[in-house]
Amino acid sequence: MTKPSLTTLLPSFESDYNNGAHPEVLRHLVETNNVQSASYGFDVWSESAREKIREACECPMAGVFFLAGGTQANATVIDALLRPYQAVLAVETAHINVHESGAVEASGHKVIALPSHEGRMVASDLRRYLERFFADPTWEHMAVPGMVYVTMPTELGTIYSKVELEAIYGVCCKYRLPLFIDGARLGYGLMAEGCDFDLPWLAHHCDAFYIGGTKVGALCGEAVVFPQGAPEGFFTHVKAHGALLAKSRVAGVQFDALFTDNLYFRIGKHAIDMAMRLRAIFKRQGYELKPSPTNQQFVILENGQMQTLMQKVLFETWEPIDAHHTLCRFVTSWATTDADLQVLEESLSAFVS
Amino acid sequence: MTKPSLTTLLPSFESDYNNGAHPEVLRHLVETNNVQSASYGFDVWSESAREKIREACECPMAGVFFLAGGTQANATVIDALLRPYQAVLAVETAHINVHESGAVEASGHKVIALPSHEGRMVASDLRRYLERFFADPTWEHMAVPGMVYVTMPTELGTIYSKVELEAIYGVCCKYRLPLFIDGARLGYGLMAEGCDFDLPWLAHHCDAFYIGGTKVGALCGEAVVFPQGAPEGFFTHVKAHGALLAKSRVAGVQFDALFTDNLYFRIGKHAIDMAMRLRAIFKRQGYELKPSPTNQQFVILENGQMQTLMQKVLFETWEPIDAHHTLCRFVTSWATTDADLQVLEESLSAFVS
Amino acid sequence: MTKPSLTTLLPSFESDYNNGAHPEVLRHLVETNNVQSASYGFDVWSESAREKIREACECPMAGVFFLAGGTQANATVIDALLRPYQAVLAVETAHINVHESGAVEASGHKVIALPSHEGRMVASDLRRYLERFFADPTWEHMAVPGMVYVTMPTELGTIYSKVELEAIYGVCCKYRLPLFIDGARLGYGLMAEGCDFDLPWLAHHCDAFYIGGTKVGALCGEAVVFPQGAPEGFFTHVKAHGALLAKSRVAGVQFDALFTDNLYFRIGKHAIDMAMRLRAIFKRQGYELKPSPTNQQFVILENGQMQTLMQKVLFETWEPIDAHHTLCRFVTSWATTDADLQVLEESLSAFVS
Amino acid sequence: MTKPSLTTLLPSFESDYNNGAHPEVLRHLVETNNVQSASYGFDVWSESAREKIREACECPMAGVFFLAGGTQANATVIDALLRPYQAVLAVETAHINVHESGAVEASGHKVIALPSHEGRMVASDLRRYLERFFADPTWEHMAVPGMVYVTMPTELGTIYSKVELEAIYGVCCKYRLPLFIDGARLGYGLMAEGCDFDLPWLAHHCDAFYIGGTKVGALCGEAVVFPQGAPEGFFTHVKAHGALLAKSRVAGVQFDALFTDNLYFRIGKHAIDMAMRLRAIFKRQGYELKPSPTNQQFVILENGQMQTLMQKVLFETWEPIDAHHTLCRFVTSWATTDADLQVLEESLSAFVS
Repeated sequence: MTKPSLTTLLPSFESDYNNGAHPEVLRHLVETNNVQSASYGFDVWSESAREKIREACECPMAGVFFLAGGTQANATVIDALLRPYQAVLAVETAHINVHESGAVEASGHKVIALPSHEGRMVASDLRRYLERFFADPTWEHMAVPGMVYVTMPTELGTIYSKVELEAIYGVCCKYRLPLFIDGARLGYGLMAEGCDFDLPWLAHHCDAFYIGGTKVGALCGEAVVFPQGAPEGFFTHVKAHGALLAKSRVAGVQFDALFTDNLYFRIGKHAIDMAMRLRAIFKRQGYELKPSPTNQQFVILENGQMQTLMQKVLFETWEPIDAHHTLCRFVTSWATTDADLQVLEESLSAFVS
Repeated sequence: MTKPSLTTLLPSFESDYNNGAHPEVLRHLVETNNVQSASYGFDVWSESAREKIREACECPMAGVFFLAGGTQANATVIDALLRPYQAVLAVETAHINVHESGAVEASGHKVIALPSHEGRMVASDLRRYLERFFADPTWEHMAVPGMVYVTMPTELGTIYSKVELEAIYGVCCKYRLPLFIDGARLGYGLMAEGCDFDLPWLAHHCDAFYIGGTKVGALCGEAVVFPQGAPEGFFTHVKAHGALLAKSRVAGVQFDALFTDNLYFRIGKHAIDMAMRLRAIFKRQGYELKPSPTNQQFVILENGQMQTLMQKVLFETWEPIDAHHTLCRFVTSWATTDADLQVLEESLSAFVS
Repeated sequence: MTKPSLTTLLPSFESDYNNGAHPEVLRHLVETNNVQSASYGFDVWSESAREKIREACECPMAGVFFLAGGTQANATVIDALLRPYQAVLAVETAHINVHESGAVEASGHKVIALPSHEGRMVASDLRRYLERFFADPTWEHMAVPGMVYVTMPTELGTIYSKVELEAIYGVCCKYRLPLFIDGARLGYGLMAEGCDFDLPWLAHHCDAFYIGGTKVGALCGEAVVFPQGAPEGFFTHVKAHGALLAKSRVAGVQFDALFTDNLYFRIGKHAIDMAMRLRAIFKRQGYELKPSPTNQQFVILENGQMQTLMQKVLFETWEPIDAHHTLCRFVTSWATTDADLQVLEESLSAFVS
Repeated sequence: MTKPSLTTLLPSFESDYNNGAHPEVLRHLVETNNVQSASYGFDVWSESAREKIREACECPMAGVFFLAGGTQANATVIDALLRPYQAVLAVETAHINVHESGAVEASGHKVIALPSHEGRMVASDLRRYLERFFADPTWEHMAVPGMVYVTMPTELGTIYSKVELEAIYGVCCKYRLPLFIDGARLGYGLMAEGCDFDLPWLAHHCDAFYIGGTKVGALCGEAVVFPQGAPEGFFTHVKAHGALLAKSRVAGVQFDALFTDNLYFRIGKHAIDMAMRLRAIFKRQGYELKPSPTNQQFVILENGQMQTLMQKVLFETWEPIDAHHTLCRFVTSWATTDADLQVLEESLSAFVS
């Protein structure tokens, strides 16, 4: 999230939100542009997209709402699920704990940070925290855990396994805490190598989640899903959070396209394929990468090479490793091409020769 | 804002946000789609649109920010300009007081309602309120007025004159209260017959305003403008309100188009022309209309005719007048066509014959 | 609530909170001072006071909590009973709408103002508002009424009858809105001439109320009562509102005294007796008073006489009536004496002679 | 903060808020009880106490406000000093981070936790955090540090030295962050052995602090001090937080007594003397204590002995050390007597023999 360069002809691995819309999404926007329809979520495409999402999730009763962005979706859902004195549990590296400018706190709720295991929450940490919390005779003087938040895939590109999520959901159920899954990059997570569950499974193992559009081929929009139905008054709650789109078709049309002919998953698959090839390229050249089966790849570069490489392809620096090395992030998306990878590989090869 | 019918082939005067994007806006989205650029407002089109807006406002130092929607823009700006114990002054019929689900209160601030004069605030009401407020020995026990909010054009389709706004701004300056103008439909207000000021004049007679995109030809997006520069930390404040667009190009590209070749004003002009013709049609048929020089027209219909007319063209019911009559709203936009008006006129004529 | 003079030897009718504690309350504070006991509401006197209040209310299951002040009690209870997007209904003159610096809004909730009938809400207004609200096709875009707030006695000194409160509670029940009664001066209301219900009746006709201590003989403290039991987590909610007293005995001891030997009601009765005598004095001298059966009396004084009278007794100006007359407030309390009334009567007599 | 036993005849070291008021405080309450005076902070004793506190702080321009409790004081001051998107920096063990039920977050602000060094913040941690924060290219996407909070003495009984506080304040000044000192037990901190500064020095090395009354001899009340004057509108802000006492004399009279004849410091001194004797008693019997120069002493007890000791004197368990040992807290106050210590010593001796 460094402020990256502006338009450029260089191949870019900076992020999965520096392109426009996937061509099929854009085409649907163009083709429907002259049709008049209702607003505030009652347009035909939102209705259609909701139905397609319910089907894709195998949750016929699901409440589905389209919001403009991810921070907004997180803050709105969390505030809807908590009582005023309650807190949300998340890992240290969670987006809500780090990169949302305190949006959750701005609506009145503490974020309680648990240890991050390469971005993941671990059920045993969660259980231990809750056991200790309620064993503490002073617990009623503390912000009371009221829900659990995880991201899939995580901010560090890792994913959860079925067993891991099941364990977390088990603890949640025992303590009657709703589980909310931030799926800003859900398409990449579900298509990741090694992901052993699909969308319906996920939808049946949490109480709320969102399907990220902005980072998976849309211009904007996140689909918030409550598999067992939305909390009472959620429509008004969304508006009170300033998150209700008047011209809701902008999100509806895009999600209608994303959930037609499996586009959402095809986008995910393409980016993952490209990420795995990118990984292979780095590995072939002897670079060390953090484990990540998704579209965000983290590579350690020597600073001189990093500067040279930046003349050829765009990417972000993540954090300094030592005086001479930096962890860098390379992200693929629906827009990543063979040519992009080729430029990368040639640039890296040049260092060796 | 009744939940209107879905897609239909009937001419629609339901709202100015039930169409897609203006063709020139859409074309810009399509043409720029494959260019990669930065995010969070640093994309080239946002940069370009900001510059064009500064020029159009003749405010070279203006801070310009693109947010997704109107309620969001209102709540975010108001919360940025007030201290926690302060309130915003607005008229009874103000959007923030009626149709935003308490979004201003949700960020901690009272809306103090002054009388509405066909949607307008009147400087003398404002002055009297402030005089009485600070003369009250208990004023420090009350929510303290910290800013003033007006809409231009108003929720009822009326507009302010130069003299009226000057008077309001004079009172604001005397009491050191920032004036914030909600311009969700600003393009229609500035192009209205009888509007005696332009965008630069407006920008020099307030402390903050926004240029509505959603209702004036864009798919989404409102441009918040601080003519003398934004409050410190406003970027982070926007994110904390969940109002920062990651893929900011979605708004940037659209505003870049809207402020190219005067498109924003051409859209306004077209809708106003159509509204005046619509007005004339109703008048010719002997109907009574509320005074409105903008793109929202309010007509009293006999209930039986209203039902019949609804089979021919779409519009919204506003409020019952008596047991037999209803105030109805007809809205024009960039998309309103000659053919639409013709269907309306023919439908009305049928009642007479 | 003018900022009144400091200590003085003049008889004071300024307010019911400008004295110390009732002697019996003070004595209990002194006698228990050296006993050690638990804190945060678990001290023996809080336990005892809770039990006495449950008995006095004939609500054996009631949740009872002692908070320091009235604005705090209102904001804390209202925030506990509402969802974030919900509003509280109250009359225009309600304390929460006027004299609490926006404390309700500061915790995120709109106050919707209904007409005030000499301080009272009228069931028909409430019913009409709710009928219209839910009939409005745009209601989901508005802050949704989530509870009703009334004061007994009202800010203007008037009281509700059984029939009036029953009607309000009936509407509340129909719409499933909790009814909360602000009893900052409850003791004076229940002892007022013409009050046709008692504490148990009140407790069985609302969902929450508070028994004001600060204005009825205590140094501080309000007893919040939930007749059917407190909302889940209310203890923590109170603390999150900064309203939990660590050394809770300060409130517990005082309420223990107030609910011993009917002290709370004896204080109410004394103040009412004194208020009725004060009323009679004014009437005998030909002054016009607003109707009020409680300890707040509102009298119209000619400005010259008002100035003269202020040299003899202390009272507050309420609001100007015209250029030559002012509405003034005279308040009695447990501390009002025969001598105070005598000075008043002699001062008034002097105007005549 | 275990829920301790109710009234009892056993010597209690449970807390410094399980007694009533110091006799001199109580006497002042009794003696002033029948004097009428103004309210909302304008009573004569509040005026007098403010003046005495300004003198004691050598801050003639200080703004001084009396609030009912500590959590309230923290939440109110912090919300007054921050912009909505800003966060407060505090150590992990800070009261606002642990034991205030999320009150700071409830008013919209994140608490950023730095490492705790036996309860203390260390300037180098603070500097490093701020350096890294503003070096992070994504810092504008995070809750921005807007002030610093420390407690003196800390929640673990430790104190700051002049050099340590000076270093923290230096970092604050460099980054223009107000420094707020929570002095819930300030009297004990300033009188602690080894404390090398006094009240005026402290007042000149921060931007806001509060002088705790509840835990230092009063029934309730904390004096918030802004050495350079209060933020604009702070009176109304206090009321909006539900923290304004109507019958303000309850706090005013008590602080007037506490700052007469150095009572506040005499109470501190007595409790410290008793704590040092208590320490010596434990040490003589071979027990291990955490370092603490203040009135909170932390001792490790074997669980069997702990149970036995609890039959003789009251104290709180703090946290388990291992399967057989528990860290226990013993607190002294103005009310701790020679006899209390004697019972403790005899009880401990019994274990040996």
